[in-house]
Amino acid sequence: MSSKFVSYEERAKRHPSSAARSLLETIVRKRSNLCVSVDVTAKADFLDIIDVVGPYVCLVKTHVDIIEDFDSSLIATLQELSKKHDFLIFEDRKFADIGNTVALQYSSGVHKIASWSHITNAHPVPGPSIITGLASVGKPLGRGLLLLAEMSTKGSLAKGVYTEEAVQMARAHRDFVIGFIAQRSMNAVGKSSTDTGDEDDFLVLTPGVGLDVKGDAMGQQYRTPEEVLNDGSDVIIVGRGIYGKGPTVDIQSVQVQAERYRAAGWSAYEKRLQL
Amino acid sequence: MSSKFVSYEERAKRHPSSAARSLLETIVRKRSNLCVSVDVTAKADFLDIIDVVGPYVCLVKTHVDIIEDFDSSLIATLQELSKKHDFLIFEDRKFADIGNTVALQYSSGVHKIASWSHITNAHPVPGPSIITGLASVGKPLGRGLLLLAEMSTKGSLAKGVYTEEAVQMARAHRDFVIGFIAQRSMNAVGKSSTDTGDEDDFLVLTPGVGLDVKGDAMGQQYRTPEEVLNDGSDVIIVGRGIYGKGPTVDIQSVQVQAERYRAAGWSAYEKRLQL
Repeated sequence: MSSKFVSYEERAKRHPSSAARSLLETIVRKRSNLCVSVDVTAKADFLDIIDVVGPYVCLVKTHVDIIEDFDSSLIATLQELSKKHDFLIFEDRKFADIGNTVALQYSSGVHKIASWSHITNAHPVPGPSIITGLASVGKPLGRGLLLLAEMSTKGSLAKGVYTEEAVQMARAHRDFVIGFIAQRSMNAVGKSSTDTGDEDDFLVLTPGVGLDVKGDAMGQQYRTPEEVLNDGSDVIIVGRGIYGKGPTVDIQSVQVQAERYRAAGWSAYEKRLQL
Repeated sequence: MSSKFVSYEERAKRHPSSAARSLLETIVRKRSNLCVSVDVTAKADFLDIIDVVGPYVCLVKTHVDIIEDFDSSLIATLQELSKKHDFLIFEDRKFADIGNTVALQYSSGVHKIASWSHITNAHPVPGPSIITGLASVGKPLGRGLLLLAEMSTKGSLAKGVYTEEAVQMARAHRDFVIGFIAQRSMNAVGKSSTDTGDEDDFLVLTPGVGLDVKGDAMGQQYRTPEEVLNDGSDVIIVGRGIYGKGPTVDIQSVQVQAERYRAAGWSAYEKRLQL
């Protein structure tokens, strides 16, 4: 291959993590690197949106802790939709506590995230114990973890040395950490000059992607699919760009936007293979 | 006063935040700077422990997201216990997302944290939008926010410039941020040479306090009440040191340990007033 970027197919063949392979294979099967972030507070809206966007996405990102009428039937339906439309589930929990606590938060409580979410994420700020705590629950289930190495918000403290140490922490836990929430490829970040080889293949999932707007009132900043793919992102995460900002959900519009973002993400991917 | 430390009484009189004043007044009334962290997964154990430690604490720290049989009656009982024993409630949620998301996580979902938790906390890593997002929900309710400026775990990334920027962020949001989860006073941290006055009175709540042990297998490290009080901590947070590590809860032992830690914390406070 002459491209500086390797195809999803090739990476799916070689990736050591089963969770990462599943995601890469889904991307290829569905020609979609789109993850839809479903941030609504009513169970019916949540499931309606997922049923509509399902055919266009490789991954559905959830915040089940904001759903007012959450119950175990929501999870059962979510799992059915995941099979019906062939996507994985990513609970965007942003774990950020010590090992003992995150292990309980991941496995227990009302939400029981580890039992249904293929992928979840964590902030590296507590140090490596957050990874070992989550791995003690998630690894036996074949789950994968993303670390937040950067954030797209104004004034984020995830930068510089913080980002480098986050990547080093991931490299030391390749058996569970499959990649990052970040704005660019992290494979070369924080490597010392004595590190050899280019064996890292961390997935990069990128929030803050939009085709129409540049920012919101609460500090979120937006970039286009092409901008982030060319910087090494593998999956674009889109939320309000697809399901809108209003109190009601326009299902027809959600479908149109989901296909629009899927096409834009895939086109950006095909273009970068020519780079 | 000749002491380098001001008494809780004096600070209660002057503090601009009603949430901080409430906590300081409770500390004085109960001669307790002890916060018990109740990290159990069964509702009955959770409420039993709180009813036993209630008389000895100024604050109860919760992780309601680990409780398997959580429901709204748990919150009603927790609020009754808070009145019966005169303590405040601190849900240790460690919010760590963008403004729009944390506002929903704080107000909504199954747990509705803002409606019952006097104090909560957040990581500053997303930047100032996390504070404004939480403040949009919590300020009208008279709630207070703690930022995590440091963590007591091995390999924590909350250090150096990160800690300084966290304190600067708090200083810019004194109307809602009442203090820090930290190991020492933060009042002088991150001040530029042109900053004048010593008007900061951030509360410091310190986890990782133990009288018997020095560390656990998941990266937690322990210090004594005297060590942390002398470094400027105001409230000691004790968890497994009080309710034990076993699967069953020995109520008698919990009571003995709660009074032991209350006395140790108060004695360390009285000693530091002589410094």
